[in-house]
Amino acid sequence: MSAFGTHGRGHLDGPVVVLGTGLLGASIGLGLRGRGVPVFLFDPSPTNQAVAVDIGAGRPLGELAEQPQLVVVAAPPDVTADVVQKALADYPSAVVVDIASVKATIQAQLRERGVDLARYVGTHPMAGREKSGPVAARGELFTSMPWVLCPSEETSDAALQAARSLAGDLGAIVSQFTADEHDEAVALVSHLPQIMSSLLASRLQGTPLHALSLAGNGLRDTTRIAASDPTLWVQILGGNAEKVVSILHGVREDLNRLIGTLEEPLAPGARLDLAQLISEGNAGQARIPGKHGGPPQAYSWLTILVDDKPGQIAQLLTEIGEIGVNLEDLRLDHSSGQNVGMVELSVLPSKHDLLVEALTDRGWRVLQ
Amino acid sequence: MSAFGTHGRGHLDGPVVVLGTGLLGASIGLGLRGRGVPVFLFDPSPTNQAVAVDIGAGRPLGELAEQPQLVVVAAPPDVTADVVQKALADYPSAVVVDIASVKATIQAQLRERGVDLARYVGTHPMAGREKSGPVAARGELFTSMPWVLCPSEETSDAALQAARSLAGDLGAIVSQFTADEHDEAVALVSHLPQIMSSLLASRLQGTPLHALSLAGNGLRDTTRIAASDPTLWVQILGGNAEKVVSILHGVREDLNRLIGTLEEPLAPGARLDLAQLISEGNAGQARIPGKHGGPPQAYSWLTILVDDKPGQIAQLLTEIGEIGVNLEDLRLDHSSGQNVGMVELSVLPSKHDLLVEALTDRGWRVLQ
Repeated sequence: MSAFGTHGRGHLDGPVVVLGTGLLGASIGLGLRGRGVPVFLFDPSPTNQAVAVDIGAGRPLGELAEQPQLVVVAAPPDVTADVVQKALADYPSAVVVDIASVKATIQAQLRERGVDLARYVGTHPMAGREKSGPVAARGELFTSMPWVLCPSEETSDAALQAARSLAGDLGAIVSQFTADEHDEAVALVSHLPQIMSSLLASRLQGTPLHALSLAGNGLRDTTRIAASDPTLWVQILGGNAEKVVSILHGVREDLNRLIGTLEEPLAPGARLDLAQLISEGNAGQARIPGKHGGPPQAYSWLTILVDDKPGQIAQLLTEIGEIGVNLEDLRLDHSSGQNVGMVELSVLPSKHDLLVEALTDRGWRVLQ
Repeated sequence: MSAFGTHGRGHLDGPVVVLGTGLLGASIGLGLRGRGVPVFLFDPSPTNQAVAVDIGAGRPLGELAEQPQLVVVAAPPDVTADVVQKALADYPSAVVVDIASVKATIQAQLRERGVDLARYVGTHPMAGREKSGPVAARGELFTSMPWVLCPSEETSDAALQAARSLAGDLGAIVSQFTADEHDEAVALVSHLPQIMSSLLASRLQGTPLHALSLAGNGLRDTTRIAASDPTLWVQILGGNAEKVVSILHGVREDLNRLIGTLEEPLAPGARLDLAQLISEGNAGQARIPGKHGGPPQAYSWLTILVDDKPGQIAQLLTEIGEIGVNLEDLRLDHSSGQNVGMVELSVLPSKHDLLVEALTDRGWRVLQ
């Protein structure tokens, strides 16, 4: 018998308490409210809490009259363990989950303090926005995004089930990792890209503007996430320092090797070294999964020239719809100084020639 | 009096010789043929040359009966100086341009050999495709892309004018740099992103697949160019080694600082160090110019949930066209495992609220 009703895969029926009403906490509240679950909110900032209540993410915690089924700790990473510990004590029959982006440190902190972890599940919804705060909250923020559950050995089945219901009810793709596996995975797929992008973008600080005028999509793509929030990333990198550093040692080795090679570009073996560096990148890049989490797949790209005005791209996509080909990806290229745009499309390789031919027949300027 | 006709800004009227019929050489031939300019082709690979002739990029060089106006050297970077030197000797009244991606080394090589540079202009059309070879050639490859001219002090006005006509006739955005300025600029905006992307992607070689299942757009964006061709990049990086290395020294300093900080994440000042790294990336990223080479501009992004089937995105863009808002950029998000897609749009900040409201009114699920 679990405390969470009798339904097998289970939905939450509440009440749910959300501690912390920033972007993620308020979005969780909104999403659950949209499913009819009673939600009660608290934030140490009265303003944040009031905004979250006003947008309909839940009612003030003071109005809670019964024991909650679930408490969601949506606090900054560096105070998460404290808030989880207090929540487990304050609500002695509730399951407590947190949503911080690093997991092992928090679990270790709780264990060191002798906290019973049976009712606790560390989780990580991998969703976010460029804006922050409850004003930016959306109930659909988690739709189709990964949400990792990291139960400890002590976590009860009932607690894990409640965490699974939370993520599932909010439309996320649920997966289960140990805290260590999770932190290792995000160190590679999230924290390392952030660091490399920041290190790269940092070099542009002193670049003459005429040099930057040559920037194309390669630079834009690789530096887009360099615009991220320093405050958040200090906590994330600090909370996963050990795993990130061990990856960075590998990066430094490769970088040293590359610098050595480029310092003597005519030495025997220099060309082979350079080719190896790029080839290793090829090999790693090819392992990134494709659309919908499927196996990596080499899509075929084609480029179409369009006039850079409203309606042109829509017209193009309407015709592609008529032709009956599904787009895998789409990019606009605006690196130019003229009012001609390029639309890059990727499609399944088997559809490439068909699409090129059909679009050309219809008068589009297809580059590939 | 120039040898290139009397028209002021001038168009080429040929004949033009293209030496090297890979992707770029054959595309130049096609583009010029499309403007009625007589083109004569040569490639050391008879197959490549025959394909280029077959697709209409020009006639075999053997059929050339008069002195060419212009010779375009479209050879691999490491033999470009040789081919330029020979072309200047073979065609004593022609202007000779090359199109290799690094410029100072080639100019220095020619000067060391005592070649008279009056009729020579180093140039760099910044265009390319994921495919290579003459089969992939397109006459519009250069449309709206940057094409940098790097005349030396010895370059004559007439030669510079011919190079300018070539780039302009092919629809490129022409700019002028010294060879040194060019190589410094591309080291930062092109070669460094390639290296950072390759170093990052290289770390994914041994990643467990379950970790890669958490990959999102951040990782995809930062590793996209890691799929580039090793053979080409060996020549590019080798040809610009000195400038690239001096930037990499700066990267290594930052990386060492970061590793030091993360090895003692609780030391005084560690948080400040981390925040500084990310902030410096913010500052560099913010300097990248916006669309159409304009000043950097912070666009507003919004995200719309769509069913992942043909026609949905076209319908969305049609309605945005009806609303009358111009898109600055557009991205599809396919990191999920469900058949719901996200379309991220960027628009001028002043249009953001209007668009959100109008799309919501029309029943679209707008996240932001």
